[in-house]
Amino acid sequence: MNHGDFLKDYRIKDEPYYRPQAEEIALFTAAYERRLPVMIKGPTGCGKSRFVEYMAWRLGRPLLTVACNEDMTAADLVGRWLLDSDGTRWQDGPLTQAARHGAICYLDEIVEARQDSTVVIHPLTDHRRQLPLDKKGELIQAHPDFQLVISYNPGYQSLVKDLKPSTKQRFTAFRFDYPSADVEAEILARETGIDPGLALRLIGLAESARRLKGHGLDEGISTRLLVYAASLMADGMAAKHACRMALVDPLTDDDDIRATLEHAIDALFG
Amino acid sequence: MNHGDFLKDYRIKDEPYYRPQAEEIALFTAAYERRLPVMIKGPTGCGKSRFVEYMAWRLGRPLLTVACNEDMTAADLVGRWLLDSDGTRWQDGPLTQAARHGAICYLDEIVEARQDSTVVIHPLTDHRRQLPLDKKGELIQAHPDFQLVISYNPGYQSLVKDLKPSTKQRFTAFRFDYPSADVEAEILARETGIDPGLALRLIGLAESARRLKGHGLDEGISTRLLVYAASLMADGMAAKHACRMALVDPLTDDDDIRATLEHAIDALFG
Amino acid sequence: MNHGDFLKDYRIKDEPYYRPQAEEIALFTAAYERRLPVMIKGPTGCGKSRFVEYMAWRLGRPLLTVACNEDMTAADLVGRWLLDSDGTRWQDGPLTQAARHGAICYLDEIVEARQDSTVVIHPLTDHRRQLPLDKKGELIQAHPDFQLVISYNPGYQSLVKDLKPSTKQRFTAFRFDYPSADVEAEILARETGIDPGLALRLIGLAESARRLKGHGLDEGISTRLLVYAASLMADGMAAKHACRMALVDPLTDDDDIRATLEHAIDALFG
Amino acid sequence: MNHGDFLKDYRIKDEPYYRPQAEEIALFTAAYERRLPVMIKGPTGCGKSRFVEYMAWRLGRPLLTVACNEDMTAADLVGRWLLDSDGTRWQDGPLTQAARHGAICYLDEIVEARQDSTVVIHPLTDHRRQLPLDKKGELIQAHPDFQLVISYNPGYQSLVKDLKPSTKQRFTAFRFDYPSADVEAEILARETGIDPGLALRLIGLAESARRLKGHGLDEGISTRLLVYAASLMADGMAAKHACRMALVDPLTDDDDIRATLEHAIDALFG
Amino acid sequence: MNHGDFLKDYRIKDEPYYRPQAEEIALFTAAYERRLPVMIKGPTGCGKSRFVEYMAWRLGRPLLTVACNEDMTAADLVGRWLLDSDGTRWQDGPLTQAARHGAICYLDEIVEARQDSTVVIHPLTDHRRQLPLDKKGELIQAHPDFQLVISYNPGYQSLVKDLKPSTKQRFTAFRFDYPSADVEAEILARETGIDPGLALRLIGLAESARRLKGHGLDEGISTRLLVYAASLMADGMAAKHACRMALVDPLTDDDDIRATLEHAIDALFG
Amino acid sequence: MNHGDFLKDYRIKDEPYYRPQAEEIALFTAAYERRLPVMIKGPTGCGKSRFVEYMAWRLGRPLLTVACNEDMTAADLVGRWLLDSDGTRWQDGPLTQAARHGAICYLDEIVEARQDSTVVIHPLTDHRRQLPLDKKGELIQAHPDFQLVISYNPGYQSLVKDLKPSTKQRFTAFRFDYPSADVEAEILARETGIDPGLALRLIGLAESARRLKGHGLDEGISTRLLVYAASLMADGMAAKHACRMALVDPLTDDDDIRATLEHAIDALFG
Repeated sequence: MNHGDFLKDYRIKDEPYYRPQAEEIALFTAAYERRLPVMIKGPTGCGKSRFVEYMAWRLGRPLLTVACNEDMTAADLVGRWLLDSDGTRWQDGPLTQAARHGAICYLDEIVEARQDSTVVIHPLTDHRRQLPLDKKGELIQAHPDFQLVISYNPGYQSLVKDLKPSTKQRFTAFRFDYPSADVEAEILARETGIDPGLALRLIGLAESARRLKGHGLDEGISTRLLVYAASLMADGMAAKHACRMALVDPLTDDDDIRATLEHAIDALFG
Repeated sequence: MNHGDFLKDYRIKDEPYYRPQAEEIALFTAAYERRLPVMIKGPTGCGKSRFVEYMAWRLGRPLLTVACNEDMTAADLVGRWLLDSDGTRWQDGPLTQAARHGAICYLDEIVEARQDSTVVIHPLTDHRRQLPLDKKGELIQAHPDFQLVISYNPGYQSLVKDLKPSTKQRFTAFRFDYPSADVEAEILARETGIDPGLALRLIGLAESARRLKGHGLDEGISTRLLVYAASLMADGMAAKHACRMALVDPLTDDDDIRATLEHAIDALFG
Repeated sequence: MNHGDFLKDYRIKDEPYYRPQAEEIALFTAAYERRLPVMIKGPTGCGKSRFVEYMAWRLGRPLLTVACNEDMTAADLVGRWLLDSDGTRWQDGPLTQAARHGAICYLDEIVEARQDSTVVIHPLTDHRRQLPLDKKGELIQAHPDFQLVISYNPGYQSLVKDLKPSTKQRFTAFRFDYPSADVEAEILARETGIDPGLALRLIGLAESARRLKGHGLDEGISTRLLVYAASLMADGMAAKHACRMALVDPLTDDDDIRATLEHAIDALFG
Repeated sequence: MNHGDFLKDYRIKDEPYYRPQAEEIALFTAAYERRLPVMIKGPTGCGKSRFVEYMAWRLGRPLLTVACNEDMTAADLVGRWLLDSDGTRWQDGPLTQAARHGAICYLDEIVEARQDSTVVIHPLTDHRRQLPLDKKGELIQAHPDFQLVISYNPGYQSLVKDLKPSTKQRFTAFRFDYPSADVEAEILARETGIDPGLALRLIGLAESARRLKGHGLDEGISTRLLVYAASLMADGMAAKHACRMALVDPLTDDDDIRATLEHAIDALFG
Repeated sequence: MNHGDFLKDYRIKDEPYYRPQAEEIALFTAAYERRLPVMIKGPTGCGKSRFVEYMAWRLGRPLLTVACNEDMTAADLVGRWLLDSDGTRWQDGPLTQAARHGAICYLDEIVEARQDSTVVIHPLTDHRRQLPLDKKGELIQAHPDFQLVISYNPGYQSLVKDLKPSTKQRFTAFRFDYPSADVEAEILARETGIDPGLALRLIGLAESARRLKGHGLDEGISTRLLVYAASLMADGMAAKHACRMALVDPLTDDDDIRATLEHAIDALFG
Repeated sequence: MNHGDFLKDYRIKDEPYYRPQAEEIALFTAAYERRLPVMIKGPTGCGKSRFVEYMAWRLGRPLLTVACNEDMTAADLVGRWLLDSDGTRWQDGPLTQAARHGAICYLDEIVEARQDSTVVIHPLTDHRRQLPLDKKGELIQAHPDFQLVISYNPGYQSLVKDLKPSTKQRFTAFRFDYPSADVEAEILARETGIDPGLALRLIGLAESARRLKGHGLDEGISTRLLVYAASLMADGMAAKHACRMALVDPLTDDDDIRATLEHAIDALFG
């Protein structure tokens, strides 16, 4: 893959829909100017990835996203030798591609990755901005446009899975939460076409469920699930069925919690 | 394997026998129209896989089924490099095949899989509908016909093996249970040819056993095992032997539970 | 290995000696007619494998036996890519061979295998009768003659090592135990040539030891060990030496249990 | 990579900015004269890596840095065989490169590495100064200029992750801490251009936070994070926003600690 | 390696020195006549391996010995595919070699091996006498001369590391112990040339130490260590030094046990 | 690597400096005459490796040293197949090289190695003196000059990491400790050139610290660290700085222990 191809494939073509909530755009822009590494915290489905996509579009930079997982090794980020007809051939991993060609590299849910994946980013996140490819014997000096962005969900934070202090101390950070009711209603209407009153009723249901977080639910109902429910309703499904299928059944099998949620649905849409 | 071959091999040729229980067909169809990811929950042998097969036939889409297991890695879903006479050659995994060619991909018992297998589906399940092949350096935009369906059995749900909230929040969901007695009798008669009265007696036995779930049995007797017993009886085996072989011996070695079940068999068929 | 070779190598040439105990032959035959998967339960050395071998001979089907173990992976059953002079070459595993060519595949002590090995058999054990070779991109429709048989020993059953309910619910099952005294005596005489009176004295010893199961012995003395002792005696070794070598020393190093067994030997043969 | 290339790529071109704190430069120089191995201890972001970089520049030696991690094996340090068009080819790891060509090898956060990585350095750290490449069958006598430097953070020290006594006994050691307030202010002004008064206010905030170490914070605010905050302020961001983004959000999600820190920010900059 | 070479390399050329203790030679010979699998139990260094070597010589069979260990896999016993200039080539493991060419295969300390290594021997140890090479697709019928012998040390027996009942029930067994004093003295004199009186004094020391087994010593002093001590004394070392070096320092660092043993040495040789 | 090269590379060219402490030279020589395996026990940095190096020089034998670690496998000792332009090629490991060509093989800190590494040495340490290369199908008869030497540190001895009795019973053994004060002073003066009075003061400090072993220090100050301190002082560093850098900072971060040691330094050199 040559440089030109690379830039083309990972560039965001159309402006993603993003509804700002505070001063996050100005602050991210300032961090990018200094190329400071950025960490974005917040619950599932609150718009973290959408924000990064929007900033990549706004800053005109290609975006490489990596969904981290506990079986991911440093080689999955940095690259590895592959066997070819002429012997071994080096394949850059997504982090190396981003550092070499000047993209924003977004490591989604970084705490899920194995430790070698988090340590490998260290030399890219201080004054050196270097990535040593030990297995290839090459020392990459990051492209001037390169920036590293990571996300993580503090709700998962535990003694077993947390970033090491020596990693945390390399990032500036934002904390996200679900949007306020009026912003969220604007998002639902914009994405599915349902009318604002219906959107606000769905959000009322979500707010009830979010109060159950830690009391039987691991996480509240995300904006994404609200979009699912609204789109099923926009296609003519009954509110009761759409809500059960998008907002209840995915989240829990606990009979008490289910009864509470079903009761709220009946009250709102019955 | 080229595109045409692919479509042919995995397309369901004949209408599978499926007996609807509620509005699941209309709701699945609506979810497919919006290409929302679908999760199907329910106990073993209640017809989850059969329903997915039926919907694939009804929607005219090829179906790729993957039986998930705890040794399955992301590469088993996404693909890997193989060594060929001309060096390495990329082999698409079933998830990649489905995303590339526009099939329904059905991940059966997803909670059994390792976490990297569940995280790899994330970018396919939000607005991006993308599958990054990090090891190949390719970013696949899912075919417009592609849909992701997963199943899982809440009875197995535990702290150790459960979907992460960030995965759950990407799916709409259905909850299945064993069919009602008359529906189940219709299924037994249709599949094995036994007469309805005998079918209802077998179902009566199953309902007794299902009440033992959590009291010595991990799960109740499934519709599948009832079909086994009915087919042995249809071939002339004594009811007592057929029931022991299909409904008792596979499920338990506990002497008390066995005595309870044998007693019920004697009462019904003795 | 072509189809013809395959059939030849794994076909049982001579009728194995098998002494029926109840109606297991008729029931197994009925299950085979419907191609229902069969599970055989029972203690070590009671004749489970011999029964399967006999049925394969009687039904005229080739038999592939796999001794399962905790390091066995799905690839050991299904097959894998091997490197050849022309690149990679696919090698069918025993399960794939059996499904492709129409043999009985016997997975001995299935609970010892890793979970991926048990999940991989699922699509072969329901109405689909399919085996997806994900790594090869091939979907095998099982040969009409194919049947799956598994064995397991309930004495080992524990929370850690047990079949998942979703696996159990795919099998019909038989429970075996040690033969009755007269049947066992007939077996000893037939296999080693010792006279029936001596055989019954050995079986008396075995029955004493079987009562110690769970009280210092993990399992009772199997029919196989009785055959060992009888054959050493048939070759002229003293009963005392033959019994100690075949029935005591293999089973235990506990001094109390040893004294009990030695005492019984002295009483019977002293 | 030939010798000349190697020396060029890893040589520090420009004098790194380093503000000495005590007699560490003279002592490191003396240790280097005798080629004694050196261990540098201290908290995250206090300047350990910067000091090693400065000493490499001052001594005119190339510097190879390895960020250790728990998945790193001895082969990652020493080297491995790679497959080439002419068969296998040996690739020196960074430790071997440094020993062969006469560089300083800096193993950052050595306790994170697996034990084989720490044992492999033993023969390089006593009178032998040898590195056996067992897998290659070569015995390297270290270049006269080679020196080994390691770092570790005693705050992480635990029974599980600590250097073995037989490793510790091979090193001389330095203990670093955060710079004194006036030195740290000088660093902030020099690196970001903010005025000294503002720098001292930021350091006052850091000193408050450092007192929370062990009382809700794993580590205090590092000099590096202070540089981040100062640079955002130098670019026009409000102090409140810059401090939250650089000094609060990266470190903690604990509400009490956050309130304490936000309160201190208000008091200093409100 | 062709058949002839194989027979030659592993055949015992000269009669090993072996001093019988009871009827073990006749019993082993009878077991070999019936090709019954044999298990030899006993403490470290009591002569188990020497006995097997002697029987192989006496029966005129080649002997393959495998020292089992916890990292040994079934492939280490059975064989594996190797890459060759013409692609992959199958390499028989020692168990396969023995079964194919008709040798005695001796698995030393079998309980140390992983479970897959022990299960793989099952079909070789019942009436089938087969070894399925699943990875090669070959079913080996054991050579008529083949016999399997295993050893294990009951002193190590624990819940974690013990043979499974289904493995034990496949073997006849011998229990060995240290030789009686007069036999052991004969062995020492024969192997090192020291005079019988000195040999008996060494054995007296060993017997004191053997009584400490389980009271500070894991095992008693073996015949092998007595041979070491006697040979050092035969070469002129002082008894005190030879005994400490061969009988005390290898076994323990416990000061009390050391004092007891040193005291016994002084009493006997002082 | 041919035989001649091998002998040359690993032969000790110059007499290593070694200061005998008791009769260890005569006893090692006697053990070597009989080719008895030798185990050397003692704390870190007391001169174990130096003694082995000296004996190899004195006996005129090449020396192969392997620093054992918990990730080391039997293949690292014995050898493995490598891929070459003509297919696979066997590479002898260090143990095989030593056994084949007649060197002394020194396995340093053997308890750190995985069990397969320790079991693989068994057949080399009894009357057989053989090394079976199972993976290659070769049985090596050890060269007449070959000897095996291992070291281990009883201070690390634990239930988890200890040699198995069946391994211990194959070795003669020496126990080393730190040298007496006058011998240690002679070593310091000889190695660094400091005057004997200063050397004795350093040793006084070490003896204080050695009494803290088990009371806050894992091990006492080794002779090696004393040589470090003495050499820094010989180069003009202040005693206070040299002692802190060589004798305090490498060993501990415990404030109490540090205060005790600093106090002792002040008293001796203040």
